Amino acid sequence: MSEWRKDPIVDRWVIISTERGKRPNDYKDILEEKKTQECPLCVGKEKLTPPEIMAYREPGSQNDTPGWWVRVVPNKYPALRIEEESSLSQHGIYMAMNGIGAHELIVESYRHEPGLDTQTEKQVEEVIWVWRERSLDLRKDSRLKYIQIFKNTGPVAGASLEHTHSQLIATPLVPVEVGQELEGAREYASRHGSCIYCDIVSQEIAEQYRVVVESENFLSFNPFASRFPFETWIIPKEHQYDFGQIREEMVRDLAGILRTTLRKISVMIKNIPYNMVLHTSPVNIREEGYYHWHLEIMPRLTIMAGFELGTGYFINPTPPEMAAQALRDTEEFYPLHERSNQEVYHYV
Amino acid sequence: MSEWRKDPIVDRWVIISTERGKRPNDYKDILEEKKTQECPLCVGKEKLTPPEIMAYREPGSQNDTPGWWVRVVPNKYPALRIEEESSLSQHGIYMAMNGIGAHELIVESYRHEPGLDTQTEKQVEEVIWVWRERSLDLRKDSRLKYIQIFKNTGPVAGASLEHTHSQLIATPLVPVEVGQELEGAREYASRHGSCIYCDIVSQEIAEQYRVVVESENFLSFNPFASRFPFETWIIPKEHQYDFGQIREEMVRDLAGILRTTLRKISVMIKNIPYNMVLHTSPVNIREEGYYHWHLEIMPRLTIMAGFELGTGYFINPTPPEMAAQALRDTEEFYPLHERSNQEVYHYV
Repeated sequence: MSEWRKDPIVDRWVIISTERGKRPNDYKDILEEKKTQECPLCVGKEKLTPPEIMAYREPGSQNDTPGWWVRVVPNKYPALRIEEESSLSQHGIYMAMNGIGAHELIVESYRHEPGLDTQTEKQVEEVIWVWRERSLDLRKDSRLKYIQIFKNTGPVAGASLEHTHSQLIATPLVPVEVGQELEGAREYASRHGSCIYCDIVSQEIAEQYRVVVESENFLSFNPFASRFPFETWIIPKEHQYDFGQIREEMVRDLAGILRTTLRKISVMIKNIPYNMVLHTSPVNIREEGYYHWHLEIMPRLTIMAGFELGTGYFINPTPPEMAAQALRDTEEFYPLHERSNQEVYHYV
Repeated sequence: MSEWRKDPIVDRWVIISTERGKRPNDYKDILEEKKTQECPLCVGKEKLTPPEIMAYREPGSQNDTPGWWVRVVPNKYPALRIEEESSLSQHGIYMAMNGIGAHELIVESYRHEPGLDTQTEKQVEEVIWVWRERSLDLRKDSRLKYIQIFKNTGPVAGASLEHTHSQLIATPLVPVEVGQELEGAREYASRHGSCIYCDIVSQEIAEQYRVVVESENFLSFNPFASRFPFETWIIPKEHQYDFGQIREEMVRDLAGILRTTLRKISVMIKNIPYNMVLHTSPVNIREEGYYHWHLEIMPRLTIMAGFELGTGYFINPTPPEMAAQALRDTEEFYPLHERSNQEVYHYV
């Protein structure tokens, strides 16, 4: 059973995850390369995961058997569990809470490929629909306050499985990072009467320096204060605070611009490790209408070291204007992977 | 010339460091292992670094020649420079500031060894004296508001040079991480009339669960909400807000407990990568008397991935009680490195 523990000084919670419990001796060979075993996310290996929560699959095919093209399963070593009852406990000056929440894995393809970038546009669209569906479903549990969808690609970025997948962790708290963005947006709105993200979109489109791609509904750009080289945000041009508000034609458009952005980044630097997070407004609390949902893609070419951990500031050796220019100039053409684009996405 | 850029939404500054400027093409082989060249921090290689700022050296020996046992030099690729004039600029909704600050490298031994743990206790003491001396010297520049001393050990933790060294970055801003700790401490003091860090020390000593080592003046322990497996803090038992307040006998004591702690960690897990940061009160602003300086040692056995970056929360698979027990039970005896402990630290 996992436990949420609050830092006694700052607003930071840590999940002490005994499910994935590592005893001190388990780290002895942490630095040795892990050998890949049978991939539990591949088609035909459905029994290697816990029973599926949902899947987009061929009509008539059975749960936990082939026939799917996107599949959602509970994390085998969940950091949090939905079944827990919520209860706070005080230990002297310290505070803890049991490990309520949800931890799911979204298998983004039945094929063993390492990224979303080599999937068809239609397949990326299906993945986005699944993100939306899980987000709408989980918020029915009123104890959950935030649904964090994220993706780790490459071992350096924390991916322990190579097969392309994203994850979802739903928490009973509004995370501190999101809370700070909400507060910044709220404060800006009270001073300027407008959404700061909308104003960023306007300035970026007007200036063009940091734009990577623009589509009908979205802007893909390198933020002014990029923490990481090639950090890229994808944001809806119209004001939507909640990812759940995305409309059908926007899903299609997002699939295109997300895939193009990931392809540009991956053509630019082969095997680039990156994290992607979907920031959206919290759920089951008062509406945060001044927020504005967006995707943040954070390539991990630099290392967060003592300065970053000690200060919370970042050192980025590549100005975003230079990064965006390079990404604009990069063709998204994949000579080696072209096959993927010709294939139909359905498993047959 | 580097530039500080403020995130338009949250209180986060990024140093866009053109000094260490990496053009997009420079990352092409980022994942390939770097081959070690001649170590610029070894004795006899003093000309490979910028001229030294200070050194503890044999009487009569010349600057930038052998004879030193601790040596401070400007970082060859500084993220910040002290010579800059401070000036803010506004770009639409964005704010930037030129790259004022200082970035120094503290060479912790003339010998090419990878850690502080294999140094003599006397040598560790000398390093702490240097940290103190640089901290007291830099604060004379009233533009500087924080002096962040930190240490990266191992490539995974961001160390680009193997030779044992720490770094110092002085900033014209109070970093957000420190600001949050200050605010937490201030708020606790206003509610309880006491220092939260002092109260943590009391509870940890009373409970013993998370204590690694205790000395006359210091406590080494794994914090209740440890972000990382084996995260260890070393804190003075008496209330001191500013590291500059450390007394002579405390320096000797800190050298002992710091070395013992690092040795236990390094015996427990060979070649463990870690970051260490010294958190202390800001300088040149109103006194933050309710703060309490301390060292944070953060082993990097887990990877900060999408969840951590997206939420600001952490997942730690090893409870601090279990980690502390293992560290308490670990002998700090170094069969392979014993030589180092027998040697005198002076270069002769």
